[in-house]
Amino acid sequence: MSTSRPDLSRFAINQITTRDWTLAQAVDGYARAGVRGIGAWVQYVDDAGTAAAARLIREAGLFVPCLCTTAWVNLADSTAYRAALAENRRRLDMAAEIGAKTLVVVPGGLATGERDLAAARRRVAEALAELLPYARSVGVALGLEPLHPMYAADRSCLSTFAHCLDLCELLGTGAGIVADVYHCWWDPNFIAGLEKAGPDRILTFHLCDWLVPTRDVYQDRGMVGDGVIDIAGYRAVLDRIGYDGPFEIEIFSKLDWWLRDGAETTRIAVERCAPFVSPRPQAKAA
Amino acid sequence: MSTSRPDLSRFAINQITTRDWTLAQAVDGYARAGVRGIGAWVQYVDDAGTAAAARLIREAGLFVPCLCTTAWVNLADSTAYRAALAENRRRLDMAAEIGAKTLVVVPGGLATGERDLAAARRRVAEALAELLPYARSVGVALGLEPLHPMYAADRSCLSTFAHCLDLCELLGTGAGIVADVYHCWWDPNFIAGLEKAGPDRILTFHLCDWLVPTRDVYQDRGMVGDGVIDIAGYRAVLDRIGYDGPFEIEIFSKLDWWLRDGAETTRIAVERCAPFVSPRPQAKAA
Repeated sequence: MSTSRPDLSRFAINQITTRDWTLAQAVDGYARAGVRGIGAWVQYVDDAGTAAAARLIREAGLFVPCLCTTAWVNLADSTAYRAALAENRRRLDMAAEIGAKTLVVVPGGLATGERDLAAARRRVAEALAELLPYARSVGVALGLEPLHPMYAADRSCLSTFAHCLDLCELLGTGAGIVADVYHCWWDPNFIAGLEKAGPDRILTFHLCDWLVPTRDVYQDRGMVGDGVIDIAGYRAVLDRIGYDGPFEIEIFSKLDWWLRDGAETTRIAVERCAPFVSPRPQAKAA
Repeated sequence: MSTSRPDLSRFAINQITTRDWTLAQAVDGYARAGVRGIGAWVQYVDDAGTAAAARLIREAGLFVPCLCTTAWVNLADSTAYRAALAENRRRLDMAAEIGAKTLVVVPGGLATGERDLAAARRRVAEALAELLPYARSVGVALGLEPLHPMYAADRSCLSTFAHCLDLCELLGTGAGIVADVYHCWWDPNFIAGLEKAGPDRILTFHLCDWLVPTRDVYQDRGMVGDGVIDIAGYRAVLDRIGYDGPFEIEIFSKLDWWLRDGAETTRIAVERCAPFVSPRPQAKAA
Protein backbone atom coordinates (compact mmCIF):
# COMPACT_ATOMS: atom_id res chain seq x y z
CA MET A 1 0.00 0.00 0.00
CA SER A 2 1.45 3.35 -0.94
CA THR A 3 1.07 6.20 1.50
CA SER A 4 -0.87 8.18 -1.07
CA ARG A 5 -3.65 5.59 -1.37
CA PRO A 6 -5.44 5.13 1.92
CA ASP A 7 -6.87 1.74 2.77
CA LEU A 8 -10.61 2.34 2.81
CA SER A 9 -11.63 -1.28 3.29
CA ARG A 10 -13.37 -0.50 6.59
CA PHE A 11 -14.77 2.85 5.53
CA ALA A 12 -18.38 3.63 4.73
CA ILE A 13 -20.29 6.82 4.20
CA ASN A 14 -23.70 7.02 5.74
CA GLN A 15 -25.85 8.29 2.93
CA ILE A 16 -27.58 11.00 4.97
CA THR A 17 -24.21 12.76 4.69
CA THR A 18 -25.01 13.37 1.03
CA ARG A 19 -28.64 14.05 1.68
CA ASP A 20 -29.63 15.19 -1.78
CA TRP A 21 -28.24 12.16 -3.59
CA THR A 22 -30.50 9.26 -4.45
CA LEU A 23 -29.31 5.81 -3.49
CA ALA A 24 -28.05 5.24 -7.03
CA GLN A 25 -26.10 8.50 -6.96
CA ALA A 26 -24.64 7.72 -3.54
CA VAL A 27 -23.61 4.19 -4.51
CA ASP A 28 -21.95 5.51 -7.63
CA GLY A 29 -20.37 8.53 -5.96
CA TYR A 30 -18.96 6.60 -3.03
CA ALA A 31 -17.61 3.79 -5.21
CA ARG A 32 -15.90 6.28 -7.52
CA ALA A 33 -14.22 7.84 -4.49
CA GLY A 34 -12.90 4.48 -3.36
CA VAL A 35 -15.25 4.22 -0.40
CA ARG A 36 -16.08 0.59 0.31
CA GLY A 37 -19.32 0.83 2.21
CA ILE A 38 -22.62 2.67 2.40
CA GLY A 39 -24.78 3.26 5.44
CA ALA A 40 -28.27 3.12 4.00
CA TRP A 41 -31.47 4.90 4.98
CA VAL A 42 -34.95 3.46 4.63
CA GLN A 43 -36.41 6.34 2.63
CA TYR A 44 -33.76 6.13 -0.09
CA VAL A 45 -34.13 2.36 -0.32
CA ASP A 46 -37.88 2.74 -0.55
CA ASP A 47 -37.45 5.33 -3.31
CA ALA A 48 -35.25 2.97 -5.29
CA GLY A 49 -37.23 -0.15 -4.46
CA THR A 50 -35.60 -2.67 -2.16
CA ALA A 51 -34.71 -5.24 -4.83
CA ALA A 52 -33.21 -2.58 -7.09
CA ALA A 53 -31.36 -1.07 -4.14
CA ALA A 54 -29.92 -4.44 -3.21
CA ARG A 55 -28.76 -4.97 -6.79
CA LEU A 56 -27.17 -1.51 -7.04
CA ILE A 57 -25.24 -1.99 -3.83
CA ARG A 58 -24.18 -5.54 -4.66
CA GLU A 59 -23.01 -4.66 -8.15
CA ALA A 60 -20.94 -1.78 -6.77
CA GLY A 61 -19.35 -4.18 -4.30
CA LEU A 62 -20.19 -1.99 -1.30
CA PHE A 63 -20.66 -3.37 2.18
CA VAL A 64 -23.60 -2.09 4.22
CA PRO A 65 -22.73 -1.55 7.89
CA CYS A 66 -26.26 -0.52 8.76
CA LEU A 67 -29.70 0.51 7.68
CA CYS A 68 -31.07 3.64 9.37
CA THR A 69 -33.38 3.49 11.27
CA THR A 70 -36.17 1.78 13.12
CA ALA A 71 -39.59 3.38 13.06
CA TRP A 72 -40.30 5.20 16.29
CA VAL A 73 -42.18 3.32 18.96
CA ASN A 74 -42.96 6.30 21.21
CA LEU A 75 -46.64 5.70 20.82
CA ALA A 76 -49.08 5.45 23.68
CA ASP A 77 -51.86 4.25 21.36
CA SER A 78 -51.62 0.49 21.12
CA THR A 79 -52.80 0.26 17.51
CA ALA A 80 -50.19 2.75 16.40
CA TYR A 81 -47.58 0.98 18.50
CA ARG A 82 -48.40 -2.39 16.89
CA ALA A 83 -48.18 -0.76 13.47
CA ALA A 84 -44.74 0.60 14.34
CA LEU A 85 -43.57 -2.88 15.30
CA ALA A 86 -44.90 -4.23 12.02
CA GLU A 87 -43.07 -1.48 10.15
CA ASN A 88 -39.91 -2.41 12.01
CA ARG A 89 -40.26 -6.02 10.85
CA ARG A 90 -40.51 -4.69 7.31
CA ARG A 91 -37.33 -2.68 7.88
CA LEU A 92 -35.56 -5.77 9.21
CA ASP A 93 -36.55 -7.57 6.01
CA MET A 94 -35.25 -4.61 4.03
CA ALA A 95 -31.96 -4.70 5.91
CA ALA A 96 -31.58 -8.40 5.21
CA GLU A 97 -32.37 -7.93 1.52
CA ILE A 98 -29.82 -5.16 0.97
CA GLY A 99 -27.18 -6.99 3.00
CA ALA A 100 -27.16 -4.61 5.98
CA LYS A 101 -25.85 -6.32 9.06
CA THR A 102 -27.56 -3.97 11.47
CA LEU A 103 -30.79 -2.04 11.75
CA VAL A 104 -30.01 1.10 13.74
CA VAL A 105 -32.39 1.52 16.66
CA VAL A 106 -33.62 5.10 17.01
CA PRO A 107 -36.89 4.53 18.84
CA GLY A 108 -38.20 8.04 19.49
CA GLY A 109 -38.37 9.84 22.79
CA LEU A 110 -41.44 10.69 24.82
CA ALA A 111 -44.90 10.02 23.48
CA THR A 112 -47.10 13.04 22.83
CA GLY A 113 -47.95 14.60 26.18
CA GLU A 114 -45.79 12.13 28.07
CA ARG A 115 -43.31 13.28 30.73
CA ASP A 116 -42.27 9.89 32.11
CA LEU A 117 -38.90 9.18 30.52
CA ALA A 118 -38.42 5.98 32.51
CA ALA A 119 -41.72 4.68 31.09
CA ALA A 120 -40.57 5.62 27.59
CA ARG A 121 -37.39 3.63 28.17
CA ARG A 122 -39.33 0.62 29.41
CA ARG A 123 -41.53 0.78 26.31
CA VAL A 124 -38.45 0.74 24.09
CA ALA A 125 -37.03 -2.24 25.96
CA GLU A 126 -40.30 -4.09 25.47
CA ALA A 127 -40.46 -3.23 21.78
CA LEU A 128 -36.91 -4.44 21.22
CA ALA A 129 -37.52 -7.65 23.14
CA GLU A 130 -40.50 -8.30 20.91
CA LEU A 131 -38.59 -7.52 17.70
CA LEU A 132 -35.45 -9.44 18.54
CA PRO A 133 -36.60 -12.97 17.63
CA TYR A 134 -37.65 -11.69 14.22
CA ALA A 135 -34.35 -9.84 13.81
CA ARG A 136 -32.46 -13.03 14.63
CA SER A 137 -34.56 -15.00 12.17
CA VAL A 138 -33.59 -12.70 9.30
CA GLY A 139 -29.97 -12.38 10.41
CA VAL A 140 -29.99 -8.66 11.15
CA ALA A 141 -28.72 -7.22 14.43
CA LEU A 142 -30.59 -4.59 16.40
CA GLY A 143 -28.05 -1.79 16.75
CA LEU A 144 -28.85 0.31 19.78
CA GLU A 145 -27.43 3.76 19.21
CA PRO A 146 -26.95 6.00 22.22
CA LEU A 147 -28.18 9.35 20.96
CA HIS A 148 -27.01 12.66 22.38
CA PRO A 149 -29.05 13.63 25.46
CA MET A 150 -30.31 16.71 23.63
CA TYR A 151 -32.46 14.29 21.59
CA ALA A 152 -33.96 12.49 24.60
CA ALA A 153 -37.36 14.17 24.28
CA ASP A 154 -37.98 13.94 20.57
CA ARG A 155 -35.67 11.48 18.81
CA SER A 156 -34.39 8.77 21.13
CA CYS A 157 -34.67 8.10 24.83
CA LEU A 158 -31.58 5.88 24.56
CA SER A 159 -29.21 8.57 25.81
CA THR A 160 -26.09 6.91 27.13
CA PHE A 161 -23.72 4.17 26.10
CA ALA A 162 -24.04 2.50 29.51
CA HIS A 163 -27.83 2.43 29.28
CA CYS A 164 -27.70 0.89 25.80
CA LEU A 165 -25.15 -1.67 26.92
CA ASP A 166 -27.31 -2.67 29.89
CA LEU A 167 -30.20 -3.09 27.50
CA CYS A 168 -28.08 -5.21 25.14
CA GLU A 169 -27.17 -7.47 28.02
CA LEU A 170 -30.83 -7.90 28.91
CA LEU A 171 -31.75 -8.61 25.30
CA GLY A 172 -28.93 -11.04 24.56
CA THR A 173 -27.73 -12.34 21.22
CA GLY A 174 -28.69 -10.24 18.24
CA ALA A 175 -28.48 -6.87 19.98
CA GLY A 176 -25.42 -4.65 19.84
CA ILE A 177 -24.26 -1.06 19.91
CA VAL A 178 -23.96 1.55 17.20
CA ALA A 179 -21.45 4.01 18.62
CA ASP A 180 -21.19 7.54 17.32
CA VAL A 181 -18.59 9.97 18.59
CA TYR A 182 -21.01 12.85 18.09
CA HIS A 183 -23.47 11.39 20.54
CA CYS A 184 -21.01 10.01 23.10
CA TRP A 185 -17.86 12.12 23.15
CA TRP A 186 -19.00 14.17 26.17
CA ASP A 187 -19.68 11.09 28.29
CA PRO A 188 -17.18 10.51 31.12
CA ASN A 189 -18.03 6.80 30.77
CA PHE A 190 -17.73 6.49 26.99
CA ILE A 191 -14.30 4.88 26.94
CA ALA A 192 -15.20 2.55 29.80
CA GLY A 193 -18.32 1.65 27.83
CA LEU A 194 -16.35 0.78 24.70
CA GLU A 195 -14.02 -1.37 26.78
CA LYS A 196 -16.92 -3.12 28.50
CA ALA A 197 -18.79 -3.69 25.24
CA GLY A 198 -15.78 -5.24 23.55
CA PRO A 199 -15.27 -5.53 19.81
CA ASP A 200 -18.10 -7.93 19.08
CA ARG A 201 -20.89 -5.85 20.47
CA ILE A 202 -19.83 -2.68 18.62
CA LEU A 203 -21.62 -3.18 15.34
CA THR A 204 -20.46 -0.05 13.57
CA PHE A 205 -18.68 3.12 14.63
CA HIS A 206 -19.83 6.50 13.37
CA LEU A 207 -17.52 9.43 12.78
CA CYS A 208 -18.55 13.04 12.92
CA ASP A 209 -17.39 16.13 14.79
CA TRP A 210 -18.81 18.54 17.34
CA LEU A 211 -18.74 22.14 16.18
CA VAL A 212 -18.17 25.10 18.48
CA PRO A 213 -20.52 26.82 18.33
CA THR A 214 -23.23 24.37 17.37
CA ARG A 215 -25.80 26.49 15.61
CA ASP A 216 -28.63 23.99 15.33
CA VAL A 217 -29.64 21.29 17.78
CA TYR A 218 -30.37 18.71 15.12
CA GLN A 219 -28.58 19.46 11.86
CA ASP A 220 -25.30 21.21 12.50
CA ARG A 221 -22.91 18.31 12.91
CA GLY A 222 -19.37 18.85 11.76
CA MET A 223 -17.07 17.25 9.21
CA VAL A 224 -14.36 15.14 10.83
CA GLY A 225 -11.56 17.52 11.77
CA ASP A 226 -13.66 20.66 11.99
CA GLY A 227 -14.65 20.22 15.62
CA VAL A 228 -13.34 19.29 19.02
CA ILE A 229 -13.77 15.52 19.23
CA ASP A 230 -10.60 13.53 19.88
CA ILE A 231 -11.22 11.02 17.10
CA ALA A 232 -7.62 9.77 17.13
CA GLY A 233 -8.00 9.05 20.82
CA TYR A 234 -11.18 6.99 20.33
CA ARG A 235 -9.57 5.17 17.42
CA ALA A 236 -6.73 4.19 19.75
CA VAL A 237 -9.23 2.83 22.26
CA LEU A 238 -10.93 0.81 19.52
CA ASP A 239 -7.59 -0.63 18.42
CA ARG A 240 -6.76 -1.53 21.97
CA ILE A 241 -9.98 -3.47 22.48
CA GLY A 242 -9.59 -5.24 19.13
CA TYR A 243 -12.35 -3.61 17.13
CA ASP A 244 -12.09 -4.53 13.45
CA GLY A 245 -15.53 -3.37 12.33
CA PRO A 246 -16.69 -0.54 10.11
CA PHE A 247 -16.03 3.17 10.38
CA GLU A 248 -18.81 5.22 8.94
CA ILE A 249 -19.02 8.97 8.59
CA GLU A 250 -22.47 10.37 9.27
CA ILE A 251 -23.21 14.09 9.11
CA PHE A 252 -26.45 16.00 9.46
CA SER A 253 -25.62 19.48 8.23
CA LYS A 254 -28.30 21.71 6.82
CA LEU A 255 -26.05 24.74 7.30
CA ASP A 256 -23.00 23.47 5.42
CA TRP A 257 -22.46 20.02 3.96
CA TRP A 258 -25.97 19.42 2.72
CA LEU A 259 -25.65 22.65 0.73
CA ARG A 260 -22.65 21.30 -1.18
CA ASP A 261 -22.47 18.90 -4.07
CA GLY A 262 -22.41 15.27 -2.94
CA ALA A 263 -19.17 14.61 -4.79
CA GLU A 264 -17.42 17.40 -2.90
CA THR A 265 -18.73 16.18 0.45
CA THR A 266 -17.65 12.65 -0.44
CA ARG A 267 -14.16 13.72 -1.51
CA ILE A 268 -13.59 15.73 1.66
CA ALA A 269 -15.07 13.00 3.86
CA VAL A 270 -12.56 10.55 2.42
CA GLU A 271 -9.65 12.95 2.95
CA ARG A 272 -10.63 13.73 6.51
CA CYS A 273 -11.46 10.19 7.58
CA ALA A 274 -8.59 8.37 5.91
CA PRO A 275 -6.25 8.78 8.91
CA PHE A 276 -8.81 7.16 11.21
CA VAL A 277 -10.23 4.24 9.25
CA SER A 278 -7.27 2.03 8.35
CA PRO A 279 -7.11 -1.62 9.37
CA ARG A 280 -6.00 -2.24 12.94
CA PRO A 281 -2.19 -2.62 12.99
CA GLN A 282 -2.36 -5.98 14.76
CA ALA A 283 -5.06 -7.16 12.39
CA LYS A 284 -2.96 -6.15 9.38
CA ALA A 285 0.07 -7.99 10.70
CA ALA A 286 -1.93 -11.14 11.44
CA MET B 1 -52.20 29.37 54.78
CA SER B 2 -55.00 29.89 52.31
CA THR B 3 -54.92 27.95 49.08
CA SER B 4 -54.84 31.16 47.07
CA ARG B 5 -51.57 32.35 48.61
CA PRO B 6 -48.76 29.95 47.80
CA ASP B 7 -45.96 29.51 50.32
CA LEU B 8 -42.93 30.91 48.52
CA SER B 9 -40.53 30.64 51.44
CA ARG B 10 -38.23 28.28 49.53
CA PHE B 11 -38.63 29.98 46.17
CA ALA B 12 -36.06 32.13 44.42
CA ILE B 13 -35.77 33.51 40.94
CA ASN B 14 -32.39 33.37 39.33
CA GLN B 15 -31.93 36.86 37.97
CA ILE B 16 -30.76 35.77 34.52
CA THR B 17 -34.44 34.86 34.04
CA THR B 18 -35.19 38.58 33.93
CA ARG B 19 -32.08 39.38 31.96
CA ASP B 20 -32.80 43.03 31.23
CA TRP B 21 -33.46 43.99 34.84
CA THR B 22 -30.69 45.50 36.94
CA LEU B 23 -30.11 43.96 40.35
CA ALA B 24 -32.16 46.72 41.97
CA GLN B 25 -35.04 46.11 39.58
CA ALA B 26 -34.88 42.36 40.12
CA VAL B 27 -34.79 42.66 43.91
CA ASP B 28 -37.75 45.01 43.84
CA GLY B 29 -39.69 43.04 41.25
CA TYR B 30 -39.22 39.68 42.94
CA ALA B 31 -40.06 41.03 46.39
CA ARG B 32 -43.25 42.68 45.08
CA ALA B 33 -44.29 39.33 43.61
CA GLY B 34 -43.78 37.59 46.95
CA VAL B 35 -40.68 35.73 45.86
CA ARG B 36 -38.39 35.18 48.82
CA GLY B 37 -35.01 34.65 47.16
CA ILE B 38 -32.79 35.81 44.35
CA GLY B 39 -30.13 33.84 42.51
CA ALA B 40 -27.53 36.50 41.77
CA TRP B 41 -25.09 36.88 38.89
CA VAL B 42 -21.66 38.43 39.14
CA GLN B 43 -22.13 40.99 36.38
CA TYR B 44 -25.25 42.50 37.95
CA VAL B 45 -23.59 42.64 41.37
CA ASP B 46 -20.56 44.29 39.82
CA ASP B 47 -22.82 46.80 38.09
CA ALA B 48 -24.51 47.68 41.38
CA GLY B 49 -21.33 47.50 43.46
CA THR B 50 -21.04 44.61 45.88
CA ALA B 51 -21.73 46.59 49.06
CA ALA B 52 -24.77 48.27 47.52
CA ALA B 53 -25.98 44.94 46.17
CA ALA B 54 -25.66 43.35 49.58
CA ARG B 55 -27.64 46.19 51.15
CA LEU B 56 -30.39 46.03 48.51
CA ILE B 57 -30.83 42.30 48.98
CA ARG B 58 -30.71 42.48 52.77
CA GLU B 59 -33.18 45.32 53.00
CA ALA B 60 -35.62 43.42 50.76
CA GLY B 61 -35.27 40.39 53.03
CA LEU B 62 -34.38 38.06 50.17
CA PHE B 63 -32.29 34.94 50.61
CA VAL B 64 -29.55 34.23 48.09
CA PRO B 65 -29.30 30.55 47.17
CA CYS B 66 -26.35 31.13 44.90
CA LEU B 67 -24.10 33.47 43.02
CA CYS B 68 -23.54 32.60 39.34
CA THR B 69 -20.87 31.69 38.37
CA THR B 70 -17.18 30.93 38.68
CA ALA B 71 -14.84 32.38 36.08
CA TRP B 72 -13.85 29.74 33.55
CA VAL B 73 -10.64 27.88 34.18
CA ASN B 74 -10.33 26.25 30.75
CA LEU B 75 -7.04 27.97 30.16
CA ALA B 76 -3.90 26.23 29.05
CA ASP B 77 -1.81 29.35 29.67
CA SER B 78 -0.70 29.28 33.30
CA THR B 79 -0.77 33.04 33.79
CA ALA B 80 -4.33 33.23 32.56
CA TYR B 81 -5.22 30.20 34.65
CA ARG B 82 -3.78 31.83 37.81
CA ALA B 83 -5.72 34.99 37.01
CA ALA B 84 -8.93 32.94 36.72
CA LEU B 85 -8.31 31.44 40.16
CA ALA B 86 -7.73 34.91 41.60
CA GLU B 87 -10.96 36.10 40.00
CA ASN B 88 -12.74 33.15 41.55
CA ARG B 89 -11.47 34.14 45.00
CA ARG B 90 -12.92 37.58 44.34
CA ARG B 91 -16.23 35.97 43.43
CA LEU B 92 -16.17 33.90 46.61
CA ASP B 93 -15.70 37.15 48.56
CA MET B 94 -18.58 38.65 46.62
CA ALA B 95 -20.78 35.66 47.43
CA ALA B 96 -19.95 35.97 51.12
CA GLU B 97 -20.66 39.69 51.11
CA ILE B 98 -24.09 39.39 49.48
CA GLY B 99 -25.01 36.43 51.67
CA ALA B 100 -24.95 33.81 48.92
CA LYS B 101 -24.43 30.36 50.34
CA THR B 102 -23.03 28.91 47.15
CA LEU B 103 -20.86 29.97 44.24
CA VAL B 104 -22.05 28.01 41.21
CA VAL B 105 -19.20 26.23 39.50
CA VAL B 106 -19.35 26.56 35.72
CA PRO B 107 -15.71 26.05 34.82
CA GLY B 108 -15.67 26.17 31.02
CA GLY B 109 -15.11 23.28 28.67
CA LEU B 110 -12.11 22.58 26.49
CA ALA B 111 -9.31 25.08 26.23
CA THR B 112 -8.77 26.68 22.83
CA GLY B 113 -7.47 24.00 20.48
CA GLU B 114 -7.81 21.29 23.11
CA ARG B 115 -9.51 17.97 22.36
CA ASP B 116 -8.69 16.11 25.57
CA LEU B 117 -11.85 16.27 27.65
CA ALA B 118 -10.41 14.08 30.40
CA ALA B 119 -7.54 16.55 30.78
CA ALA B 120 -10.03 19.41 30.96
CA ARG B 121 -11.87 17.59 33.73
CA ARG B 122 -8.65 16.99 35.65
CA ARG B 123 -7.83 20.70 35.35
CA VAL B 124 -11.21 21.59 36.82
CA ALA B 125 -10.71 19.16 39.70
CA GLU B 126 -7.34 20.75 40.43
CA ALA B 127 -8.74 24.25 40.28
CA LEU B 128 -11.54 23.36 42.66
CA ALA B 129 -9.18 21.65 45.08
CA GLU B 130 -7.10 24.81 45.12
CA LEU B 131 -10.11 27.09 45.63
CA LEU B 132 -11.82 25.02 48.28
CA PRO B 133 -9.81 26.11 51.34
CA TYR B 134 -10.51 29.72 50.47
CA ALA B 135 -14.18 28.97 49.91
CA ARG B 136 -14.36 27.32 53.32
CA SER B 137 -12.61 30.27 54.92
CA VAL B 138 -15.25 32.69 53.65
CA GLY B 139 -18.14 30.33 54.35
CA VAL B 140 -19.28 29.85 50.75
CA ALA B 141 -19.84 26.42 49.22
CA LEU B 142 -18.55 25.46 45.79
CA GLY B 143 -21.68 24.35 43.98
CA LEU B 144 -20.79 21.95 41.18
CA GLU B 145 -23.50 22.13 38.56
CA PRO B 146 -23.77 19.29 36.09
CA LEU B 147 -24.38 21.11 32.82
CA HIS B 148 -26.15 19.53 29.88
CA PRO B 149 -23.75 17.50 27.73
CA MET B 150 -24.41 19.83 24.81
CA TYR B 151 -22.30 22.39 26.71
CA ALA B 152 -19.34 20.08 27.33
CA ALA B 153 -17.13 21.74 24.73
CA ASP B 154 -17.73 25.38 25.43
CA ARG B 155 -19.38 26.01 28.79
CA SER B 156 -18.71 23.24 31.28
CA CYS B 157 -17.00 19.90 31.12
CA LEU B 158 -18.95 18.85 34.23
CA SER B 159 -21.58 16.97 32.28
CA THR B 160 -23.23 14.47 34.61
CA PHE B 161 -24.59 14.39 38.10
CA ALA B 162 -22.57 11.26 38.91
CA HIS B 163 -19.34 12.90 37.76
CA CYS B 164 -20.01 15.98 39.90
CA LEU B 165 -20.88 13.83 42.89
CA ASP B 166 -17.67 11.85 42.54
CA LEU B 167 -15.79 15.12 42.43
CA CYS B 168 -17.62 16.38 45.54
CA GLU B 169 -16.60 13.26 47.39
CA LEU B 170 -12.98 13.78 46.40
CA LEU B 171 -13.12 17.42 47.44
CA GLY B 172 -14.88 16.92 50.76
CA THR B 173 -16.55 19.49 52.99
CA GLY B 174 -17.49 22.71 51.28
CA ALA B 175 -18.34 21.22 47.91
CA GLY B 176 -21.87 20.32 46.89
CA ILE B 177 -24.22 20.02 43.95
CA VAL B 178 -26.34 22.56 42.15
CA ALA B 179 -28.97 20.45 40.43
CA ASP B 180 -30.95 21.75 37.47
CA VAL B 181 -33.69 19.73 35.85
CA TYR B 182 -32.85 21.26 32.49
CA HIS B 183 -29.35 19.84 32.56
CA CYS B 184 -30.11 16.47 34.15
CA TRP B 185 -33.62 15.36 33.24
CA TRP B 186 -32.42 13.10 30.39
CA ASP B 187 -29.97 11.22 32.62
CA PRO B 188 -30.98 7.63 33.44
CA ASN B 189 -28.97 8.07 36.66
CA PHE B 190 -30.37 11.44 37.76
CA ILE B 191 -32.75 10.11 40.39
CA ALA B 192 -30.15 7.68 41.73
CA GLY B 193 -27.76 10.62 41.90
CA LEU B 194 -30.18 12.72 43.93
CA GLU B 195 -30.70 9.81 46.29
CA LYS B 196 -26.98 9.21 46.65
CA ALA B 197 -26.21 12.90 47.16
CA GLY B 198 -28.79 13.23 49.90
CA PRO B 199 -30.36 16.49 51.05
CA ASP B 200 -27.24 18.09 52.49
CA ARG B 201 -25.15 17.99 49.37
CA ILE B 202 -27.86 19.46 47.15
CA LEU B 203 -27.21 23.15 47.64
CA THR B 204 -29.97 24.53 45.45
CA PHE B 205 -32.35 23.05 42.91
CA HIS B 206 -33.03 24.84 39.64
CA LEU B 207 -36.33 24.68 37.81
CA CYS B 208 -36.75 25.13 34.08
CA ASP B 209 -38.29 23.14 31.26
CA TRP B 210 -37.13 21.44 28.08
CA LEU B 211 -38.92 22.68 24.99
CA VAL B 212 -39.77 20.51 22.00
CA PRO B 213 -38.42 21.62 19.66
CA THR B 214 -35.48 23.40 21.23
CA ARG B 215 -34.62 26.14 18.75
CA ASP B 216 -31.32 27.30 20.19
CA VAL B 217 -28.62 25.25 21.90
CA TYR B 218 -27.90 27.86 24.54
CA GLN B 219 -30.80 30.23 25.05
CA ASP B 220 -34.10 28.51 24.39
CA ARG B 221 -34.95 27.09 27.78
CA GLY B 222 -38.59 26.84 28.67
CA MET B 223 -40.82 28.24 31.38
CA VAL B 224 -41.84 25.61 33.91
CA GLY B 225 -44.86 23.82 32.47
CA ASP B 226 -44.14 24.57 28.83
CA GLY B 227 -41.90 21.56 28.22
CA VAL B 228 -41.59 17.87 28.87
CA ILE B 229 -39.73 17.64 32.17
CA ASP B 230 -41.51 15.73 34.94
CA ILE B 231 -40.97 18.39 37.58
CA ALA B 232 -43.59 16.96 39.92
CA GLY B 233 -41.79 13.64 39.76
CA TYR B 234 -38.43 15.16 40.72
CA ARG B 235 -40.09 17.16 43.48
CA ALA B 236 -41.43 13.87 44.89
CA VAL B 237 -37.91 12.42 44.85
CA LEU B 238 -36.59 15.49 46.67
CA ASP B 239 -39.30 15.17 49.31
CA ARG B 240 -38.51 11.50 49.75
CA ILE B 241 -34.81 12.16 50.38
CA GLY B 242 -35.60 15.00 52.78
CA TYR B 243 -34.47 17.98 50.74
CA ASP B 244 -35.57 21.24 52.37
CA GLY B 245 -33.40 23.62 50.37
CA PRO B 246 -34.20 26.29 47.80
CA PHE B 247 -36.06 25.98 44.54
CA GLU B 248 -34.91 28.48 42.00
CA ILE B 249 -36.23 29.09 38.52
CA GLU B 250 -33.54 29.84 35.95
CA ILE B 251 -34.35 30.46 32.30
CA PHE B 252 -32.15 31.46 29.40
CA SER B 253 -34.57 32.49 26.70
CA LYS B 254 -33.55 34.92 24.02
CA LEU B 255 -36.48 33.80 21.88
CA ASP B 256 -39.26 34.33 24.39
CA TRP B 257 -38.92 35.28 28.05
CA TRP B 258 -36.06 37.72 27.67
CA LEU B 259 -38.20 39.60 25.18
CA ARG B 260 -40.93 40.18 27.77
CA ASP B 261 -41.14 42.66 30.59
CA GLY B 262 -39.46 41.39 33.75
CA ALA B 263 -42.64 41.83 35.79
CA GLU B 264 -44.57 39.59 33.42
CA THR B 265 -41.88 36.92 33.48
CA THR B 266 -41.79 37.13 37.28
CA ARG B 267 -45.56 36.87 37.63
CA ILE B 268 -45.77 33.84 35.36
CA ALA B 269 -42.72 32.21 36.98
CA VAL B 270 -44.48 32.45 40.36
CA GLU B 271 -47.71 31.01 38.98
CA ARG B 272 -45.98 28.14 37.27
CA CYS B 273 -43.57 27.26 40.07
CA ALA B 274 -45.94 27.62 43.02
CA PRO B 275 -47.13 23.99 42.83
CA PHE B 276 -43.55 22.74 43.06
CA VAL B 277 -41.85 24.90 45.67
CA SER B 278 -43.88 24.51 48.85
CA PRO B 279 -42.32 23.30 52.09
CA ARG B 280 -41.88 19.56 52.36
CA PRO B 281 -45.00 18.05 53.96
CA GLN B 282 -43.02 16.28 56.69
CA ALA B 283 -41.00 19.43 57.33
CA LYS B 284 -44.18 21.48 57.67
CA ALA B 285 -45.64 18.98 60.11
CA ALA B 286 -42.47 18.85 62.17
